[in-house]
Amino acid sequence: MEIKSVTEQKSLLSTLAPGKRTRLRRLLFEFGPGNGTLMLLPIDQGIEHGPRDFFPNPASKDPEYQFRLAAEAGYSALACQIGMAEKYYPDYAGQVPLILKVNGKTDVPSSDDAFSTTNSSVEDAVRLGADAVGYTLYVGSPRQDRDLLQLRQVRQDCDRYGMPLVIWAYPRGAALDAKGGQSTFYAIDYAARMAMEMGADVVKLNMPKIDPEKDKLTPAPYNEMQVSQEEAIRQCVESAGRALVVLSGGSKIDDEKVLEQTRFVMQAGGSGVIYGRNVWQREWSEALEIIEQIKESLLANVSRIP
Amino acid sequence: MEIKSVTEQKSLLSTLAPGKRTRLRRLLFEFGPGNGTLMLLPIDQGIEHGPRDFFPNPASKDPEYQFRLAAEAGYSALACQIGMAEKYYPDYAGQVPLILKVNGKTDVPSSDDAFSTTNSSVEDAVRLGADAVGYTLYVGSPRQDRDLLQLRQVRQDCDRYGMPLVIWAYPRGAALDAKGGQSTFYAIDYAARMAMEMGADVVKLNMPKIDPEKDKLTPAPYNEMQVSQEEAIRQCVESAGRALVVLSGGSKIDDEKVLEQTRFVMQAGGSGVIYGRNVWQREWSEALEIIEQIKESLLANVSRIP
Amino acid sequence: MEIKSVTEQKSLLSTLAPGKRTRLRRLLFEFGPGNGTLMLLPIDQGIEHGPRDFFPNPASKDPEYQFRLAAEAGYSALACQIGMAEKYYPDYAGQVPLILKVNGKTDVPSSDDAFSTTNSSVEDAVRLGADAVGYTLYVGSPRQDRDLLQLRQVRQDCDRYGMPLVIWAYPRGAALDAKGGQSTFYAIDYAARMAMEMGADVVKLNMPKIDPEKDKLTPAPYNEMQVSQEEAIRQCVESAGRALVVLSGGSKIDDEKVLEQTRFVMQAGGSGVIYGRNVWQREWSEALEIIEQIKESLLANVSRIP
Amino acid sequence: MEIKSVTEQKSLLSTLAPGKRTRLRRLLFEFGPGNGTLMLLPIDQGIEHGPRDFFPNPASKDPEYQFRLAAEAGYSALACQIGMAEKYYPDYAGQVPLILKVNGKTDVPSSDDAFSTTNSSVEDAVRLGADAVGYTLYVGSPRQDRDLLQLRQVRQDCDRYGMPLVIWAYPRGAALDAKGGQSTFYAIDYAARMAMEMGADVVKLNMPKIDPEKDKLTPAPYNEMQVSQEEAIRQCVESAGRALVVLSGGSKIDDEKVLEQTRFVMQAGGSGVIYGRNVWQREWSEALEIIEQIKESLLANVSRIP
Amino acid sequence: MEIKSVTEQKSLLSTLAPGKRTRLRRLLFEFGPGNGTLMLLPIDQGIEHGPRDFFPNPASKDPEYQFRLAAEAGYSALACQIGMAEKYYPDYAGQVPLILKVNGKTDVPSSDDAFSTTNSSVEDAVRLGADAVGYTLYVGSPRQDRDLLQLRQVRQDCDRYGMPLVIWAYPRGAALDAKGGQSTFYAIDYAARMAMEMGADVVKLNMPKIDPEKDKLTPAPYNEMQVSQEEAIRQCVESAGRALVVLSGGSKIDDEKVLEQTRFVMQAGGSGVIYGRNVWQREWSEALEIIEQIKESLLANVSRIP
Repeated sequence: MEIKSVTEQKSLLSTLAPGKRTRLRRLLFEFGPGNGTLMLLPIDQGIEHGPRDFFPNPASKDPEYQFRLAAEAGYSALACQIGMAEKYYPDYAGQVPLILKVNGKTDVPSSDDAFSTTNSSVEDAVRLGADAVGYTLYVGSPRQDRDLLQLRQVRQDCDRYGMPLVIWAYPRGAALDAKGGQSTFYAIDYAARMAMEMGADVVKLNMPKIDPEKDKLTPAPYNEMQVSQEEAIRQCVESAGRALVVLSGGSKIDDEKVLEQTRFVMQAGGSGVIYGRNVWQREWSEALEIIEQIKESLLANVSRIP
Repeated sequence: MEIKSVTEQKSLLSTLAPGKRTRLRRLLFEFGPGNGTLMLLPIDQGIEHGPRDFFPNPASKDPEYQFRLAAEAGYSALACQIGMAEKYYPDYAGQVPLILKVNGKTDVPSSDDAFSTTNSSVEDAVRLGADAVGYTLYVGSPRQDRDLLQLRQVRQDCDRYGMPLVIWAYPRGAALDAKGGQSTFYAIDYAARMAMEMGADVVKLNMPKIDPEKDKLTPAPYNEMQVSQEEAIRQCVESAGRALVVLSGGSKIDDEKVLEQTRFVMQAGGSGVIYGRNVWQREWSEALEIIEQIKESLLANVSRIP
Repeated sequence: MEIKSVTEQKSLLSTLAPGKRTRLRRLLFEFGPGNGTLMLLPIDQGIEHGPRDFFPNPASKDPEYQFRLAAEAGYSALACQIGMAEKYYPDYAGQVPLILKVNGKTDVPSSDDAFSTTNSSVEDAVRLGADAVGYTLYVGSPRQDRDLLQLRQVRQDCDRYGMPLVIWAYPRGAALDAKGGQSTFYAIDYAARMAMEMGADVVKLNMPKIDPEKDKLTPAPYNEMQVSQEEAIRQCVESAGRALVVLSGGSKIDDEKVLEQTRFVMQAGGSGVIYGRNVWQREWSEALEIIEQIKESLLANVSRIP
Repeated sequence: MEIKSVTEQKSLLSTLAPGKRTRLRRLLFEFGPGNGTLMLLPIDQGIEHGPRDFFPNPASKDPEYQFRLAAEAGYSALACQIGMAEKYYPDYAGQVPLILKVNGKTDVPSSDDAFSTTNSSVEDAVRLGADAVGYTLYVGSPRQDRDLLQLRQVRQDCDRYGMPLVIWAYPRGAALDAKGGQSTFYAIDYAARMAMEMGADVVKLNMPKIDPEKDKLTPAPYNEMQVSQEEAIRQCVESAGRALVVLSGGSKIDDEKVLEQTRFVMQAGGSGVIYGRNVWQREWSEALEIIEQIKESLLANVSRIP
Repeated sequence: MEIKSVTEQKSLLSTLAPGKRTRLRRLLFEFGPGNGTLMLLPIDQGIEHGPRDFFPNPASKDPEYQFRLAAEAGYSALACQIGMAEKYYPDYAGQVPLILKVNGKTDVPSSDDAFSTTNSSVEDAVRLGADAVGYTLYVGSPRQDRDLLQLRQVRQDCDRYGMPLVIWAYPRGAALDAKGGQSTFYAIDYAARMAMEMGADVVKLNMPKIDPEKDKLTPAPYNEMQVSQEEAIRQCVESAGRALVVLSGGSKIDDEKVLEQTRFVMQAGGSGVIYGRNVWQREWSEALEIIEQIKESLLANVSRIP
């Protein structure tokens, strides 16, 4: 038997039931770059970190900044919580698809036992005309018991309503910190696999960070592997299997890094990026500029047909 | 793209579904000052603090004191718990709208992990003829997981029944105390955004208090900002976006301060005030007097059409 | 506006929906003293304290002792748990009304975080022909979150089935102990208000005990007030507003004290008493004797028409 | 009024609704000794203690040993968990009634906060043709809140389906240990009353053990009473009121003790015994022998008509 | 009465309801060795341990490796979580039966209080055409209360839909560690019995490990028994009664050991094996080779007809 390279994954869309296929196709081919890649704009930092993320670009405090950006710059979709989906999205319906993020939390308490309860439902997503649902899963958290059980309900509702499921797969919690923390290759790789096995259609991953000191704390064989960041992200994308992978940006980094990461994930078989602060913490014209460069990279580095 | 000032927010009413619009309009235009502002009378201190709040004005221990005050002084609405809504409100139905406060708790246990469970429902509110529902959200509490999940149900029921949702957005809990406590600009700003993103139609905020010692403990950039209280409240109102903001009074302060705060919030784009002890801890005629001054301020400082 | 004295409360019955009114009227006017007062017999000590309460009068261990006493001495109602309501009450149906106590617990574990889950339902009460439902609320307990949420369901079911709700309003828990304990004027006053705001039709209160050492630990202004026990109970009755108040007896005290307390609560605007051990820890004829004196006091000291 | 001796309890059957009466009658009169007594065979030690209980008589590891014993020796009923009820009972249906034990747990974790969740339901019992349901209640455990709430559901389902409820009333938990432990007269007496008030039709009690050292730790008046074991069990049976009492055996003791205990409980007004290890830890013919002696004792010492 | 040897258990299939019988028969006779034995391929290590298990054979990271192996080597069934059941199984439907594993967790947090919540349901299994459901029960964990309650729902749904229930019976948790840990004869024996009594149709057991130091910590009589591994597994199989037993492999061991264990469990009356890493951590042709040897052993050592 000849084993195919994972980046030659079988088409995801062909495995999906009609509702999921219709909606996900919309994100992949009708909006955004349009070539089967995903360029997503997240705007949930107002709850995850608070309004402090908006100060570098005060205009961004008004949610319309991100909604207009998503619509005018041609995003595949915008991801936000229920409040903005109800009060801001209606003005942009038809101009950019919506991913309703159904759980979230503040960053005030420690994330030692991170867990985000749902504040909206798949039914809300259907009602609002969303094309996908987003869920944050804290992989490895001491409260994974509640997290996985809650995700079950969301996943089942997604199956019931034909709603694509995007999992924000975040390694987190005290036990993980003792094993090298949330940014190691080990942690991200585990999170990618976990999300796929739990039923994600799209997995949002952070970029693994190679740090020998932290890698030493991870379980074998990760603690002895010496891989480049490029190789690490390739492995993580493989771990997500048929689920599509979008790379998350995190706090604002320089342009070169943004584009390098984008190239890495696309060449690894990923399907796109979900950059928030790296985009909307910029003034309007600068934001449009980096978006254009990201879009070019997505178009130039496709290595997988979803 | 030209970014509008946030205080020039798009009309909230235009984004609301018919039931919410009908009911909220009643508070904004048919009762109270009547010019699209909100003058709300809260009477939940009997459970939140106990009867001790009534001693400065013994007459206030009888709930009829507040109900009569709300009806005769022309309030936009009165907010209370289920017991009084069932046993006292019927006599005043049609004279002043009711906001049914659906959760609450005593202040006997510490508020390190504050959380208020619901003691009534949106269905109760519908049955009693209420025009809105009130919910206390403890932003940043270690038990935010249960709080947000519970709020989800209330919010969904509000959507189902067309009931406006007023969120008492209170920063609270041990983790927040370590970041400067519940009264900083940081804390109130976060709470305002949180409430909006969770689906509030109206957000009740406390006045941020500028205290350099405490502000130092807040996350960047708040820890290095030097803003006036006026500017702080302006920012907090902005963070609530299209949701209307009403300012809460807290413990009794002097008249001048009451009126200054009222002016601040109105000029910042807020929609009104919700003062309890500052009003009903006064003897009847004095209460009417300060109410008149508050109402004048609401009429004089409108900067936003809801 | 002229503020009425609270003891001139508006009729409670006139505010109640038909089902509640019919059933509560039965207790107030068809059974017991019959003049709008309540003489209630509680028999839940077997679970709250265990059989040890029966040793002073061994005959009382057989539940028929209390059932016969309630029926033959002409009580307004008898309150018990589901087991006795199912196995003993049927023989006395029509002879004395039943208050089904729907929650309870043993006193074996500490009451630092007191909470009683329900062991029967309002539907059980309807099925068994009860005329009211009893619920113990531990005001100020660290687990008030679960208590208030549970009470919500009981209260809603009472509204649905027209079943009067009697709240055993007990201040309790470690946090309260640090503020002077469960017997202070502060604690009882808070409990009375809490029960009323949570929807009680009748509130069962313990007699506040004046103890300068403990009162010092209570919040202002209670810590500086010097009130008589008579005045304290008057204030507590006021805090219950339109809800009727019945005074609880606690452990067995001397006859004079029993009758003094009865007079105090009636003169304060209360509606009756609920004495258990003070009655059935006596031998049959002695029990009848003290009951007669209590009934006379209820008839002689009425100061409120329910 | 003349107070009857408790052992002259009114017939339990006459107070039961038709379904319960039919099924309980079957155990009392159609199977077992047949004179209104109960000879029950429990086989839940495999989960409560593990297979270690089977080593004294290896044949007993095969559940058929107990099923055959119950059927051939003429038991009133056999009590087991869902797995054996589904896989072994069908072969014996009609030969011996089934009590489905609906909760249980291993003894691996400490029993400081003992609590057994349900692993089957009253509906399962109905489906399997059981004639009663068994429930273990840990009286006085710190988790009594969950226990009583769970029991409520089981009890309500028993009322709904006419299924007799047998409560294994076990004093347990850290708080109880501090008051003398689970075997004192105080503890068993409390458990008996608790079970009756919670709605048991039949109560399973352990034999109280008189131990002056432990009794000193119990609450008054138990700490000063000097009663014989015979008197203690008599009081405990009284505390169960109209509910029938069956005595549990515990670990294997000598024959004389087994028969003495049986006589005590029957003379005290109890209705039978539920001995497991004392029976099936014996080789087949020895088991039949002791069963015969137990049965004779049940027939000889009846003091109550159920 | 003559007691049969447990390895001469009555046919399990004859006790099962039609749906369970039909599906389990498919695994036993239509697929796999086909002689009433079970050769199962588990692929849940990606969540239970993370992708680290795939490094010894990188090809195994792609789930198709295991799916093809299961289909082409003629397995009785393959067991996986919902994500892979939805995205990979459809291509192999009809070629190999599916066991949907309905719960799972990462190994990041400590297993001191191990508990796996469900991430899919029996209804999912029905929808996907699965022939059995898998559930991990952590026997002896401090959270057995939640585990047993959750299992109840899965078991009841299995009864409702006629879906065979396979229990992964794993002794686990801090209390068990203090009694010798998860691999002793005591622990595995208890787990086997527990699974059977909780309603398993098939029980997955780990091989007991004889270790005198650890055995000393187990309860009597285990602490004094000196049994061979062969005898220990025989006893454990007996404890599972009529439920079928499959032996689990654990981490990769040498071929001889794999085959010895297989022989042990089959001779003890077991029904097969469920080896994961011992199979798919091998390169394709090597995997096929060991599978062939295992299959031969299953065929050669049958001692029980299911």
